[in-house]
Amino acid sequence: MSIPDLIPEALANRLRFVLVGTQHPGNIGAAARALKTMGFHQLVLVAPENHPTDEAFRRAAGADDVLTQAVVVQTLAEAVADCRLVLGCTARSRKVQLEELAPRAAAERVLKFSSTDRVAVVFGRERTGLENDELQLCHAAVHVPANPGYSSLNLAAAVQVLAYEVRVALLGAEPTVPAEVVSENEMAATHAQLEGFFSQLGDTLEQIDFHKGRAPDSALRKFRRLFMRADMNQQEVRLLRGMLADAQRMARLAGNKG
Amino acid sequence: MSIPDLIPEALANRLRFVLVGTQHPGNIGAAARALKTMGFHQLVLVAPENHPTDEAFRRAAGADDVLTQAVVVQTLAEAVADCRLVLGCTARSRKVQLEELAPRAAAERVLKFSSTDRVAVVFGRERTGLENDELQLCHAAVHVPANPGYSSLNLAAAVQVLAYEVRVALLGAEPTVPAEVVSENEMAATHAQLEGFFSQLGDTLEQIDFHKGRAPDSALRKFRRLFMRADMNQQEVRLLRGMLADAQRMARLAGNKG
Repeated sequence: MSIPDLIPEALANRLRFVLVGTQHPGNIGAAARALKTMGFHQLVLVAPENHPTDEAFRRAAGADDVLTQAVVVQTLAEAVADCRLVLGCTARSRKVQLEELAPRAAAERVLKFSSTDRVAVVFGRERTGLENDELQLCHAAVHVPANPGYSSLNLAAAVQVLAYEVRVALLGAEPTVPAEVVSENEMAATHAQLEGFFSQLGDTLEQIDFHKGRAPDSALRKFRRLFMRADMNQQEVRLLRGMLADAQRMARLAGNKG
Repeated sequence: MSIPDLIPEALANRLRFVLVGTQHPGNIGAAARALKTMGFHQLVLVAPENHPTDEAFRRAAGADDVLTQAVVVQTLAEAVADCRLVLGCTARSRKVQLEELAPRAAAERVLKFSSTDRVAVVFGRERTGLENDELQLCHAAVHVPANPGYSSLNLAAAVQVLAYEVRVALLGAEPTVPAEVVSENEMAATHAQLEGFFSQLGDTLEQIDFHKGRAPDSALRKFRRLFMRADMNQQEVRLLRGMLADAQRMARLAGNKG
């Protein structure tokens, strides 16, 4: 086999796996083991129900270093604040209209971004997955194509499949070319920049009376889906925010609600 | 997504997963669950240390049918007697000179044989893997490309990865299913619809005084690049045009240029 064995350290440092609201400590340990076998080590736990535990360390086997270094935060937004690509693993869901990727396509996406930017792959609660407001923070959803009659992958098994696909994609990638020098303008917008844009978009839609009495949620979700899919760079976010600012200014001049 | 969901029953019936000398009952249950999530159901246990157990049923979650139907035999030779392809999963081994396949190549091999013949994918003991005389029964070895510094995949995790790769290979090979019916809203915007949007965008930017004396071309090119990349559907174009129309209305009310 000609596949090289080692994920470059710089690359592994840019990729984190985020477990949200994990209920069973054994799954946290097994996920740590799954990551380490695939050459990754960044584990972030969002409000785990029970951590750290002996059970997690037992299931982590030799990956207790990954578990010891796992960062615990209270919200998904904190966990992904500095990431330019956030992928959320879901059982197929119709509730949130996100682009849906198979694991292999997701791994290609991770490969593309992780050469320069921080990336998060996010896994939800064992029984209930990710909440809709958590999925809203994701650029795309990842769906492991499972048996429709029994689709409940164990959490650590899902982590294993995704980490495996990312490993295969990273190792299969051509020897790394020196990263192109990317100007600030062309750098992917950060999570915080995108959220700032969405917040201003929501305000603007109110101020120009876009909703006309309808509940704003459905339109906002559709806008969000469109702009998340577009993988915007920083310059584009600034352009859009400039346009929104001018529309807001017009609304103020018009003596409207704003 | 156009991937079909179902592994043909006849095909699933020809593919068995064989666990040899499993030490931890929890791994047997977790392997059953992994198989079922990927649409398979034939589990064969060769001389398990402890079976059946409550622990295995607990870890099988909803896959207790797979566990109940699992066949127990005393030797690997019995387990694979009627198979024309036997693949043995190993940590890399120099002891037995077998062809070594990555999981994806192994899945292709399974795909090729399972359309007509019985196939077995074999997993060894948690600590010591397959014995040399067991590997001799295999046509090829499968090696999950793991971190050379920590290659100890959990047994059920290895089963999950192999079952996943086989599922993807089998589903990818199916004749394409009729495309999902796509609603008008979700149909990609036509060229004419996009041009109508860009034209209105250009007008709006003038009317809300976005350019402020600069030449408009550069900003328009950047907006166009962003929105072309987003592969918008018809509903999204309508939403954006609605927003532009409201901004234009505000500009008129403000007594501005428009």
